[in-house]
Amino acid sequence: MSSTRDVLRFPETDRAQIDDYLPSKSSIAAAHLKSLPHTTLTFSTSMDSQITMRPGIGSPLSGPASKAMTHYLRSKHDAILIGVNTAIADNPSLNCRIEGVGGYGGGKSLKGQPRPIIIDPKGRWDFGEDSKIFGLVKDGRGKAPWIITAQQENEIPFEKREFLRAASGKFIYLSPDQEGRFSWQDILEALWKEGIESLMIEGGAGIINDMLAEGQGFVDGVIVTIAPVWLGKGGVTVLPERENPGKETFRLRGVKWIPLGEDVVCCGRVTDLQCESPVTL
Amino acid sequence: MSSTRDVLRFPETDRAQIDDYLPSKSSIAAAHLKSLPHTTLTFSTSMDSQITMRPGIGSPLSGPASKAMTHYLRSKHDAILIGVNTAIADNPSLNCRIEGVGGYGGGKSLKGQPRPIIIDPKGRWDFGEDSKIFGLVKDGRGKAPWIITAQQENEIPFEKREFLRAASGKFIYLSPDQEGRFSWQDILEALWKEGIESLMIEGGAGIINDMLAEGQGFVDGVIVTIAPVWLGKGGVTVLPERENPGKETFRLRGVKWIPLGEDVVCCGRVTDLQCESPVTL
Repeated sequence: MSSTRDVLRFPETDRAQIDDYLPSKSSIAAAHLKSLPHTTLTFSTSMDSQITMRPGIGSPLSGPASKAMTHYLRSKHDAILIGVNTAIADNPSLNCRIEGVGGYGGGKSLKGQPRPIIIDPKGRWDFGEDSKIFGLVKDGRGKAPWIITAQQENEIPFEKREFLRAASGKFIYLSPDQEGRFSWQDILEALWKEGIESLMIEGGAGIINDMLAEGQGFVDGVIVTIAPVWLGKGGVTVLPERENPGKETFRLRGVKWIPLGEDVVCCGRVTDLQCESPVTL
Repeated sequence: MSSTRDVLRFPETDRAQIDDYLPSKSSIAAAHLKSLPHTTLTFSTSMDSQITMRPGIGSPLSGPASKAMTHYLRSKHDAILIGVNTAIADNPSLNCRIEGVGGYGGGKSLKGQPRPIIIDPKGRWDFGEDSKIFGLVKDGRGKAPWIITAQQENEIPFEKREFLRAASGKFIYLSPDQEGRFSWQDILEALWKEGIESLMIEGGAGIINDMLAEGQGFVDGVIVTIAPVWLGKGGVTVLPERENPGKETFRLRGVKWIPLGEDVVCCGRVTDLQCESPVTL
């Protein structure tokens, strides 16, 4: 069903503003040197650093322009990563609806569609035909997910494995640490080996807080949208652990602030951008 | 001692951007209709909505441009209000160092210097000659504070009263509620009666959270500076109470985002700006 009613457009002028922070030829070349994908961390918060009003409820925090931007960002990455809690709570689509990508005016191929990656160590995501993501696969409007699991193949129910395989998705088997968690090094290495050169990490709060506190060495670009609203106590908060009580957790460099509708988009890097080659006089 | 080394400048181009959100002839006229000052709420936070790294420690969150802006804002208000915890923790100056105001190139009068207001119901602020604020008064570079107290005159030590009186400051006596707190209505009414037509509320977190949750009906403009840093758990957080679990606490209207150095300034109003008079055709 190739409907165009939900196609999104993100203007050229806005693209030009953020392209500096997205995967590029030179950043992918750098990714090849370390054999890890170019990684972008992106999410939306309120002024009081909450991504949603209540646990398990996705609130539409940001406006339509920010939504179009998120889909544009998706079109610029090979894969999108989320945690299992978000997969369960939001039943997300995780595809790209920007005009011109596969399934949205770009023909029948899935060109420009990112690969959804779900971090689900214990097999908690109970996916099936009702999951939006598989509906889009069926309609030729999105790729099937890869699920990173700490389970052994024979621990996963046969029907679950068959359903995923039939949809052209797969499980990626990874060893967790003693607390049952994966390291970012292992996750990114595994994705690189699967051919993922650029990765967009979208959430939820657990993944984001972990990335800000422990995974920042793996982040190339950060793109955060802030809505001019205080949700007030009771929501789900981005507030990373602080390792050293006297030291801030994560400061962005090379920052650009871009007003977008009522919201603002903060683009930054983890380190200052270096000149890649000396200036020729 | 009329030194000019610590004079601050805030460029005309930046002023033009935020003047729409500051007290004006028409907003002061509106203030006269309700007999309450034009009130601006302003503060700086990290991305994770913290105003400081640790309780009792003022961290320099925002850059030099934001600092100059804060002093420009002070020059546009009759008074600045803070809570007693901030007075104790920060030993603040609470004067205005913008070029051209009294004490900073503007002659010997205190023209343009705001009146510091301290909310201190129980008389916890142990001020004296060592308090920066009184040093500035002595130097002719700032006004003496007014302290809003729930104590009776005879409960306050004689020397404290005399010291404040000699510096040309004063106590304002106000009745608290059963929990020992003042209402915003009472505070603003009392200041209006003292001739304060415009008030800037600066902090700390207790005052800000209270204003966002309960005092928003009294706020005319909000100006928040955000620094591109996550401080991480352990700081002092702006996170207001949410009265209704399903309803956001406070959304800004008529928002403008202004990049300022590495930071961004969010300017907004509580209600949408109405046309003050019909357009003549």
